Parts: sequence; structure tokens; C-alpha cells
Amino acid sequence: MCQGFKAAGIAAGLKKNGLLDLGLILSETPATVAGVFTKNRVQAAPVLLCKKRIHSGTSRAVIANSGNANCCTGGQGMADAIQMARLAADALGIAEDQVLPASTGVIGQPLAVGKIEAALPDLVAALSPDGLMDFARAIMTTDTTPKMISRQGSINGKIFTVTAVAKGAGMICPNMATMLCFVMTDIAAESWTLQPMLAASVDKSFNRITIDGDTSTNDTVLVLANGMSGISLKAGEGLSVFQDVLDMVLVDLAKLVVKDGEGATKLVEIVVKAAASEDDAKKIVFTVANSSLVKTALFGQDANWGRIFAAAGRSGAVFNPETVDIWFDDVRIVKDGLWAGPEAEEKATMVLQKPEFSITIDLKNGSGNYSGWTCDFSIDYVKINADYRS
Amino acid sequence: MCQGFKAAGIAAGLKKNGLLDLGLILSETPATVAGVFTKNRVQAAPVLLCKKRIHSGTSRAVIANSGNANCCTGGQGMADAIQMARLAADALGIAEDQVLPASTGVIGQPLAVGKIEAALPDLVAALSPDGLMDFARAIMTTDTTPKMISRQGSINGKIFTVTAVAKGAGMICPNMATMLCFVMTDIAAESWTLQPMLAASVDKSFNRITIDGDTSTNDTVLVLANGMSGISLKAGEGLSVFQDVLDMVLVDLAKLVVKDGEGATKLVEIVVKAAASEDDAKKIVFTVANSSLVKTALFGQDANWGRIFAAAGRSGAVFNPETVDIWFDDVRIVKDGLWAGPEAEEKATMVLQKPEFSITIDLKNGSGNYSGWTCDFSIDYVKINADYRS
Repeated sequence: MCQGFKAAGIAAGLKKNGLLDLGLILSETPATVAGVFTKNRVQAAPVLLCKKRIHSGTSRAVIANSGNANCCTGGQGMADAIQMARLAADALGIAEDQVLPASTGVIGQPLAVGKIEAALPDLVAALSPDGLMDFARAIMTTDTTPKMISRQGSINGKIFTVTAVAKGAGMICPNMATMLCFVMTDIAAESWTLQPMLAASVDKSFNRITIDGDTSTNDTVLVLANGMSGISLKAGEGLSVFQDVLDMVLVDLAKLVVKDGEGATKLVEIVVKAAASEDDAKKIVFTVANSSLVKTALFGQDANWGRIFAAAGRSGAVFNPETVDIWFDDVRIVKDGLWAGPEAEEKATMVLQKPEFSITIDLKNGSGNYSGWTCDFSIDYVKINADYRS
Repeated sequence: MCQGFKAAGIAAGLKKNGLLDLGLILSETPATVAGVFTKNRVQAAPVLLCKKRIHSGTSRAVIANSGNANCCTGGQGMADAIQMARLAADALGIAEDQVLPASTGVIGQPLAVGKIEAALPDLVAALSPDGLMDFARAIMTTDTTPKMISRQGSINGKIFTVTAVAKGAGMICPNMATMLCFVMTDIAAESWTLQPMLAASVDKSFNRITIDGDTSTNDTVLVLANGMSGISLKAGEGLSVFQDVLDMVLVDLAKLVVKDGEGATKLVEIVVKAAASEDDAKKIVFTVANSSLVKTALFGQDANWGRIFAAAGRSGAVFNPETVDIWFDDVRIVKDGLWAGPEAEEKATMVLQKPEFSITIDLKNGSGNYSGWTCDFSIDYVKINADYRS
């Protein structure tokens, strides 16, 4: 855990199953803040409030709940988001606008703020430098494991830390891929320095993953920087070192999110090479990564390259089918648009049995490259989502 | 069955399970022809050949197989498509370029033309005015029922017939939604009159349905018009009568295709009203209709309007969430962006238990309307597609 931050997670009774559902992060000193949010036209009340509050440039605390998204809840929803943050501010003895609220769960139901109020004394009492794993558990919905990554880097001989937690599992698609992610660091940086660095990292991580093609109404990534490492990001060289560490933390978290996708049994990287443009490459990556036919074949461990080829063909990207190669890891199953034969098929089938592998589509058509991560589409995905609200 | 046409379907051994897999349609006289084909960048050999051959304006026969798509098969695939049509032309004693080939099934495997050659004498012998249902069976892949619709209309007191067969079930998405559809009519019309009428009908039917968002490489809709009714479409008034009948036949078939979607248990019409533009309305229809989260909720009979709202929000359409109403049939579950309460919820849950119903999203924002049909996403969909090639 990054120095100068405390966290906690408890059960406030918002989830029907009695599991942890309310989390709190506190920075001991005012931290600078940056954030990236869902591009969905429908945005939850806490997202709208966070977007407004980070304009001040600093923040002290995050309060987050699972079990209810506080979305499509109208004026009452906004009043509840404000009240949730106010109650946390009062309990912590800090200014109201220094608290950022976040919610995840079912859409369209009123938030039980009374339960949050009742739970806050215990939540504040539980705050601890070791409490982040409980916080990570408290923001889980259909996730099967809490997700936390911490890395260190050094600038001019001084060490800094980036620690982040995320939740994912469903409604996962670029713009953005995670529903919630909170990043803590002891670097010192102005919020206008942090904001583009966070946006760049999100473009390399959460904006490249998809589980089900659905973008949530509540997606939020926040970074809080408290400066306790004594390293300031004003200097030139340090920027790229910090960016690298931030990238690695968010990419690792993004992959954890896909790996724990609802019902997922495989983590698959989709790589498109030599497209006419990066935009064309991206179109193919996401069309393949979101194809139900491709994803069910991955679940069935079937090297069904015809579905990959057909998905690329409907992506809108322009290419010549007769120059396309398709690889499963290092096995070329399609060469110049044609099946490479039974030996390649046999080897490809073995690749498909692995829990992690890559699919590379080489168009031999230009200099546009892009890649992203997806998971398979299983019977459990359907079971989880057919019964979600009951 | 429309007068002047014969059809047959037999088992040629192309399908592993021994079911019907080779079909033939013969027009007793040269028929005018029009066609609409997949917009996928990857197109099967028979699609490429059909597109070329319909330029002549007339055709006598269609030979179609299931079990193999003859796609991504290179030069050999094109030679096989030509050979398949030539063998049928020889057996029927007609000109080679008067035969249109079509294939559906697995992508990327060589077509066993020898089996087609061996089966052709029996296939020709089986041709009959009552053979169309066997033909419909012979083009089924994961379809559970053959699909045939026939309707009549009258122009100036004379009766005409439009009879059509289709197969669907998977890789179903607009542009186009069906993999194969063959329409026969005894109207007389030039191919340049038929072509825009067919395109208009397809826009109202197959281009408005989705099962899994995947567009096939083999999609083909052909219409053959033999003129035997004695009605010519050169006259003005007759055009709209014929268009109406053609529309009804294709819309009915399109709905049959969705209803028989892989693993489907529900046929759901998605209606978007009062969007800023028809384009915006269409974006929302297809984003909702293809959302895995919406479709799994439909399977679970869960009135999870939050997922519908969130899908509309990420569609790219511009609207104000605070004026949105959402209806399940005649039950308004969302009013002005907010949940309509427990009574509406209870009634909506009853609607969700029906095998067919509509979801209406009223944006109260403009004059753009659009609608389409989708099905639910079931455990059986995943089972069917995880094991498809094995």
C-alpha cells in the first residue's frame, strides 16, 4: 500500500448476500486528483458529482459502495450521492467537497443512504494502512476476486509507489472498460500534469479490454497523489518513469479485470498488424473481441478461424482477404487467406486449451497496429446475467 | 408453391449427421433475377459468382448446399462453385450461366464437389412442385425448423404469388441478416425493376434483425420472377401492391429467422421513437438488440430496464436521459428517465414471460423512428456455438 493512505471495507447491508459493500479511502494529507469517466450518455449521479469535484484539483477521500449503482435515480439520486459524501466528510472531519463518491451495482433503484450513515462510524474506525484489500472486496459485484496491483519506480534515486484497486466483471467495454478503479501514489504532481498521464494510461489499458461490449454508466478511474515520496513530477525525465509505472499498474489491472470477466475461462489478446491505419486495426480488434461467435468458440476451445476472419470482414476495415495470415500464439492457422492444413489445426487446438494466449491477424496491408484483450463467452456468463437482479 | 417452379432437397453426405444438405430450385421458363448480398469484406466463392451471374438479368435454377460455406477457400473454392453450378446445368440440360450456386456451413474447408456430382441425378429426379419444403430443410444449418412463407396478391383482378424460403439461426446481423433466402414469384418484371424492390424489402426485413451481431460471409437473397401469372410490373399501380406482398413475405421470414435464432426462446421487437434522427433511432435499436447484457436478461425474464437504458446511452445517439420512457408492450417501466415503481415492475415481469413482446424506447426528442427484431441470449446459444465444428 502506498504511504500516506488508509483504507477500509465493511458490510453495510447494501448487498443482499451480506458481503462487504462499502469502502473508504483516506489520504492523510490533501492529494492532487485526476479522473477519467464513462462516455455513456447515461451517467450515474456519483459520476456527475465526481466530474465536478475534481475540478478543485485536490481531494482527501473516496467513498464507494457496491450493490447499487445510484444511476437513473434522478434528483433524489444526486441528493443521495451528495449526502453519501457529506456523511463521510462529517465522520472524517474534512471538507465536504474533498470527498469523491462512487457507486456500482443495479441501475435504477434508490440508494439506501440510511444504511451508509449507520455503517460510517465502523467504517472510519476500520481505516488502516492495510485496509485496501477489504476496500477492493467492498467494490466487487460479480467479480470473483478482489483486484489490487502495486508497483514502485525510482526517479533520481528516490522511490515512489503506485497502488491501485479495480472492480470489473460485467458491462466491460472500452470508454471505459472498468467500472471503478482507484489509484494512489506518493508522487507529487499538479492535477493538470496527472490528468493527461492518467488519460494516456487508460488508453493503453482499460480502453483496450472488453468482456461483453457493454459500457457502464458508472465507469470511474481516479488517481490521488499525496506527494509523500518527496518526488515532484515537474522535472522532465521523471515524467516518463512515472508514466511507465502507471501504465504497468493499469495494464495489469485491466488484464485482471478481463481474466475475471463474468464466466470467463480464457484471457485472449487480439493483435492486429499491418492494417491500412491504426483506426482500421482498432476496428478489427474490437469486432473480433466482441463477436459472440468468436467468444463462444474460444470457450469451446475450437480453433474456428473462419469466425475470426468473418468478424474482421464485417468490421468496416478495408483489406484484401487474400493476404491475411491468422496466428494462435506462434501457430499460423491461416496463410494468405487460406487454411494452413491439418498439422497447423492440430497445433492451434493445443494453443486454444491454454488459459492465456494471443490471436494475431496480420493483414500485410499497411502500418496500422492495435491490440486489446478479451475473454471467452461461457455458459456461466449467461447464467450470471440471466439471474443478476434476482 | 408458386406456379412454374419445382424444387427438391436430398442428403448428399455433406453434413456429418446424414440430414438433407443439397437443394435445387428450377424455373420451368427463364426467370428474371435480382439479388442482394453480404457486405462483409470476406465473401464466399458462390456469393462472388452469383453477383456476377445475375448481371445477365435472367436465371433458371439455384443449387444450394449446407454443411460447407465454400468460403476462404481461394482459387479452388471458386473452381468448386463454378463446377457445382456446371454439374447442375448439365444434369438439367440448361446453360451453365443460368444456374446460381449458394453454400452455407463451416468456413475454410474444401467443398466435396464429388458428393454433389454423385447426388445430382437423384436430386433432379426428385424435382417437384411440392419439393420446396425439402429444399428448405436442405439449407438448414443450426436452424431447428425449415422456413417457408407464401402469399398472394391481386393486380387488376389477376392473382400473383410470392413464395420464399430462408435459413438463418447464426451469424445473423443486418447487412444482411439471413444467410440464404430464395424468393419465387410468377409476376413478370424486368430485373432492373425487381432489384430496387428487393433491396427495399430487405431493408424492411432482413436488415432489421439480429441474433448475434455477426454478419455472415455467405448472405444471399435472390428473387426469380417467371411471369406465369400474366401480370407485368411495368404498370404503375401494380408496383406498390407487389412491393407490399414482397415486404410481408420477407418480414414474416425475417421474424421466423430470429424466432429460430440459435438457442432463442423469445422474439422481441425493439422500437425507438422520437429520436433526433432516424439514424440515431437505428443506432439505439441495434445497440440494444445486440447487447449481451440485455439479451441475457431477456432470457432470464428479468425486466432489467437499466441495461436497456445503458445500451441506449452508449449507442452514440444524442438524447436527454431525463425525458426517456421505456415500455414493455403497454407497460411503462420508465417514465422521464425514472423507474415507474413496483406496480409497473410487476406488470413488466409478466410481459417478459411471453414468447413475443416489444420494447419501446421513447426519447421524446425528435421525429426519428426505427424498429428491429432480436431474440434472447440463452445457455443453449453458448452450447451450440462452443461445439459447432466438432
